[in-house]
Formats: sequence, structure tokens, C-alpha cells
Amino acid sequence: MRASTYPLIDADEAAALVLERTPVLGVERVAIADATGRVLAEDLFGEAPLPPFPSSAVDGYAVRAEDAGRTLRVLGESAAGRPFDGSVAPGRAARILTGGVVPDGADTVVMVEDVTVVGEQVTVPGQLREGTNLHKVGADLRPGELILRAGTQLGPAEIGIAAATGRAFLPVHRRPRVALMSTGDELVEVGKTPARGQIPDSNRWALLAALREAGAEVEVLGIAPDEAEALRRFVTGALAHADAMVTSGGVSVGTHDLVKPLLESLGTVHVGRVKLKPGKPFTFATLEGGKVAFGLPGFPVSSLVTFEVFVRPALRKMQGFANLQRPLLPVRLGYDAKPTAERTEYQRVRLRRDGRELVAETTGSQSSSRLMSLAGAHALVRVPAGDQAISAGTTVEAMILALP
Amino acid sequence: MRASTYPLIDADEAAALVLERTPVLGVERVAIADATGRVLAEDLFGEAPLPPFPSSAVDGYAVRAEDAGRTLRVLGESAAGRPFDGSVAPGRAARILTGGVVPDGADTVVMVEDVTVVGEQVTVPGQLREGTNLHKVGADLRPGELILRAGTQLGPAEIGIAAATGRAFLPVHRRPRVALMSTGDELVEVGKTPARGQIPDSNRWALLAALREAGAEVEVLGIAPDEAEALRRFVTGALAHADAMVTSGGVSVGTHDLVKPLLESLGTVHVGRVKLKPGKPFTFATLEGGKVAFGLPGFPVSSLVTFEVFVRPALRKMQGFANLQRPLLPVRLGYDAKPTAERTEYQRVRLRRDGRELVAETTGSQSSSRLMSLAGAHALVRVPAGDQAISAGTTVEAMILALP
Repeated sequence: MRASTYPLIDADEAAALVLERTPVLGVERVAIADATGRVLAEDLFGEAPLPPFPSSAVDGYAVRAEDAGRTLRVLGESAAGRPFDGSVAPGRAARILTGGVVPDGADTVVMVEDVTVVGEQVTVPGQLREGTNLHKVGADLRPGELILRAGTQLGPAEIGIAAATGRAFLPVHRRPRVALMSTGDELVEVGKTPARGQIPDSNRWALLAALREAGAEVEVLGIAPDEAEALRRFVTGALAHADAMVTSGGVSVGTHDLVKPLLESLGTVHVGRVKLKPGKPFTFATLEGGKVAFGLPGFPVSSLVTFEVFVRPALRKMQGFANLQRPLLPVRLGYDAKPTAERTEYQRVRLRRDGRELVAETTGSQSSSRLMSLAGAHALVRVPAGDQAISAGTTVEAMILALP
Repeated sequence: MRASTYPLIDADEAAALVLERTPVLGVERVAIADATGRVLAEDLFGEAPLPPFPSSAVDGYAVRAEDAGRTLRVLGESAAGRPFDGSVAPGRAARILTGGVVPDGADTVVMVEDVTVVGEQVTVPGQLREGTNLHKVGADLRPGELILRAGTQLGPAEIGIAAATGRAFLPVHRRPRVALMSTGDELVEVGKTPARGQIPDSNRWALLAALREAGAEVEVLGIAPDEAEALRRFVTGALAHADAMVTSGGVSVGTHDLVKPLLESLGTVHVGRVKLKPGKPFTFATLEGGKVAFGLPGFPVSSLVTFEVFVRPALRKMQGFANLQRPLLPVRLGYDAKPTAERTEYQRVRLRRDGRELVAETTGSQSSSRLMSLAGAHALVRVPAGDQAISAGTTVEAMILALP
């Protein structure tokens, strides 16, 4: 047993290094039904105008504005999908339904509520304005207009506009395939009764959830063998189909920690220790074929915090996100945030509204093993290394996980 | 063709009515691997303490604090999962690895960096404090402590803490099964070339994404028939396996709108028109067997805004969410928000940071057919009905869809 020989790297420097070494994955075309949450790989531009024809916004009568106040003869009907083929001459009108094509000749639509109908005659109000109650060609989208930028995540409205322009498939970045495993002799499968000194493997399920939320396709590999050669076979097998590997545990400095030596033998370990609390043993390596490996610490909070700080931005880079980081919002500290001498600390907080402000309250003991400090947390507050506490009442930027 | 006979209901009143009539779905047990995003159906309490044994936070030596400054004989090793069975008597120490059980007799752990080791002898520093570098039994969770409340959505940390307490399955509410269809003669399947007067059916794909994001299991049913009896068969077939039906289009007042009469014949239409912009034709009905039906307007923005205002909170109620609504944040208007005389309006905005504030900028023309007003929007600003514009610079509460 010896102290680690890996240099302690500044947390921001380590984060930059991870992103720099993480590749953007390739592009595939997905059906629009499968595009939710995916990240667009190309800018999309309008081709045809939207609407492609002048379309009624209401149910009523398509008329000429110059016929205001007159009683008009109704020639026919233009329903959605069933256009009226004729033209509306002076003194004439066509019934029109919402979404119907406004016939040639007509330049305005009068709502059904505003007319008097007797047989095939309709009397329209005395004041009519051209262009009322209709959507003009190209009013919603002009040809050549930028619809969506590459790097945009596809949500309902983004998928809607892409579909409205007739796209049945969309170019998106591939989702990262991640092999997930836990290491540690103390671990037993959740649901089995732990012997003395054993604990259920909770990290794997927490990280599975975190990986899925971040857009990864996860292969869950179980608890890794605790013997060097078996672990090597296990890991190289897992990596055959994966873009990335995420392990938790086994990256501390004890005699039984096999992950770092293995990663060294398989590629290059760029980060072996970080000035971060929780999460000092975080390890990052690049492997053959552009693959990356994240060795997360075994303590549950450390594994999830290092996931947030290093892994999630990397997974977002892989998927082509324009925006790699969690949003930041200003929050007023509701407690004195005590710093750690030489490590950047991410403290877990709950947020509550106080007037126009968000107030951050600590989730209690910030021990790296206490998951209750992260369950229900709304944000992470970054406390720079040093000896200066940030006093309650100070406004700081918080990394938002969820709004209250 | 006639004006609608449904009363125009206030938007808040309609939203309350929808929630009141929407049932909470039943409970099922899911494996922890499948629990991401699900909603806990029962309060969870701690049973055994966490950690269940005194556990080392570091790699080092388990000793007695009273032995400070002495050279101690190392008796053996306590690694994670491989406890040291003996007891640490005065003048003795045990090697210990992170996560290892602190042996009986030892009351503190000295980090490997702080000792001098010669053979089987270890010299510890002159100042030792009981309880250092170890996690005491129950420090992370006490028996009987409330872990998670019913109504909590299960994310990484929540799943982690549940797994850490040994739960392999969790009680969650069933996800709503939703039958989704579009109606409208003007619709063609995305990817097919529209004839004059036709447009691609974009709503179905936008709503599919919205439904999935809201936690629903969706059966996508295509474009509904435009003939009353065929539509009835289509809908009753779809409802056999669904908890809810979502249609878009066909709820306006035109002659070809078949959805409302059908819903009337199958159940009770509680809402047929709402003082809402966009989204006036929104329809809500309850059907036999506790099922609910949402008739969304055909205009794309109207369908997504009524989804946000009415359907999403209802789907969250079905799933047992404690929190049914989008979060609200104060935003400063970067534009003059003009109201609509008799309808509550939800205006789509982008947000940007300006110092400590979020500033809301309009997404441009708010036409109900212009999806570009919603693509990339960060929030909805609720503008009450009336004739009072809300001036630029005013701070209002915005319904947050995504933070910038």
C-alpha cells in the first residue's frame, strides 16, 4: 500500500482534458417517430413555404374585402384537404373550414359567428380587412429560413417543425454505447443479503439511471472480477461493442484496486486524481479506437458527482449537443458554504423560492457516502478551494439539476 | 355550419376540471434497473442503518486514538468485503482499505500518506482524533429515517439510495397508456408528397414526443377516418387498451368535425371550448372505465400549448407525481406582452441571462400555426385576458420548459 503517484489535477483542467479527448460520434438517420431527445447533426432549412397555400384560420366564409356589407352568393365549400376549385368573383363567397385553402379571388375570411346565412346567401359585416383570419403562404416559414441548428436536442416542437416540412427521417448523432460495471469485493447484488463487511451494489443502478438520462445506450455488465487477468478479459470483452466504459470503485490507491493499472495497460490514463470533493480518485483514460474510459470513485455521492462534472458533458459531446453543461442560475446561499483547502467542492443543495430569488439550502452532511445528500437535491453549488467560506446571503451560480 | 354551442370556459377552471376528473393509476413493482423516471408510490423508510458497519473512508491504518505518536504492530488487513476478524488492542494496528470494516477496538483511521511503515510496524502521527476518516454505523441513514416520499420521481440519486437499502424492486405508479391519433382530411403521412390543400401530419410526431417526455406509453394510431361510423370503430378499438386518448384536429366547429359528437356519445364532454390562446377548441371528456379523452386543436402550436396546459399535468397526476406543474421562475419581459381581450394567452419566449435576471424575448409571430414560435422556446409566459399590455421590463412568472 502506497500513496498515489498520479498528480492531483485541478478540477476545471481535468474537465477540459476529458472533453478535449472525447470524440463526437457519427451520424445516422432516424425515423421521426424515434427522434425524441436525439441531437440534430445538421442545420435544417425551410424548402417549401409554410403554409404552402393560403389557409383559413377559422370556420367561416372566404370573400373579397371589397364586398363588405353585401349579401353574397355561396358557390361551394373549401374544407381542409378538399379545396374549392373555383374562384370567388365579386359578389360571391365560398364556405371555408379551418385549414381549408382560401380560394383564388378571396382575400379575407369572415368568421361564421359574424355572418347571417339565408339559404345559399350570406351577409357579411360592413367592415372587412384584407388578409383577416387567414394564414398567408410562407407566413409560418419562408423557403431558405433556418429551422433548427445542428446541436439542437429534438423535443416536441422541433420534431413538429421538422415533420411539417415533410421530413420523415432526421440526421442525428449516434447515441454513445456505454459498458457499465462496478468493482469491489464488498459488493453484493441488490436483493441479496450482505454478509459482514458487504453492501449492496447501488452505484450501478444509480449510474444506469444517470447514463440513460444523459442519452446513453447502456450495457450493464455486473460486478467486475477482482483478479487482474479476469478483469482484463471482462473489460476488453465489454469494450468490443462500446464507445465508452464507466466503472465505479477500484480507482482508489489500495492494494486491491485494479482498474487504473488495467487502463494504463489498455491505453493512456490522462487523469488519475482530481482536486475535487467529492471525487478525488476520478480517473479518465483514452483507449484504442477512440474509446474512452471513466473510472469513477466507489463512494456513491462521489460517483454521481464525478458523473455530473466529467461524464455527462462528455456524453453530450459524443452526441453532438451544442450545449454540454447543465444550466447555471444565480442562487442565494441559505447556509455558510465552507470550502475545502485544496479541492473544488460541489455541495448539494435544495432550492426554494423566496420572492424573486432562489435560495439554496444544504442537504445536510456532505459525506461522500451519504446519498441522502444528493437525493432530492436541485442543484450543485461549486465552492472554490481555499479557506474563505462563502457566507449565507451571498449569491452564487448553481449548476441546476432540477427546478423546485 | 354553425357557431359552437359549448360554453367558453376560463382556462384555469378548465385545467382544474381536467385534473379533478383524471384518475391516479394503480401501482406496480418494477426492478430497480427499470425504475428511471418512474414515480414512487409509497414513502420509503430506512430499515437497517447505513453504513451497516463502521467503514473506512480512506486507505490507511485502523488504530486507537490513544496510541497517537506510537509505533504499532500491524496485525492484518481489513479490505472492502474482506473484514479483519481480530480486534485492535492497544499498541496494535490493522491495515485498512477504503470501504473496509473498521475492526473492533480501533476508533480512528490514519491515512496512508500520514504514516511511516517499516516492515510490519507503522508509526502514526502525534495527534489523533477518535472517529477520523471513518463512517460510523448509521451516519448516512438511520433506521426509520424517511428516505423518499411517495410522488418523487426516481432519478439517479433516488435509485441509488433505494438500492443502497437493499431494495431490488420499487413500488411505482403505472405509466399511462395513451392512444394517439390525428384527424383531418388535409393530412398526409410525413414523407408523402402533399396534393394541393394537403399538409404533412406533424402533430402526431410532436405529440408523440411530448407524451413520451411526460412519461406515457404511446400507441400511435395514425390518421383517423373521416366518416362518423368508421371513426367510432377506430376510437373504441383504440380505447380498449388505453387509459387515455389524445387526438389532434377535428374539434373545431366545422361541418367535418366528428370528434366532439363521438366523445359525447361515448361519455361526457366536460370542456368543449376554452378562453385560451392558442387552444380555444380544446376538448376534454371522461369515458367509461375511468378513461379520459383529450381533443386537441389541429393547429400545431395550439395542440402543443394545450398539451402543456392540460394534458401534461393530467398525465403526471395519473403517474402519482407530487408536483403536477412545470416549474415557474420570475423572468423580466424583454418585449411588450399584448393581451387578448377574452382569452388567457400563453406566449412563447426564449430566455437569456442578464446579470442575475432571466430576460424573456418573444419568439416572433405567435400565430397558432407557426411552430417556429415554439421550437427552441424556453418558457411560456401567461398573459391574462384583458386590455392591459404587460410592459417590457415587468417581471412575470414564466412556465419553464427548458433553461438556456
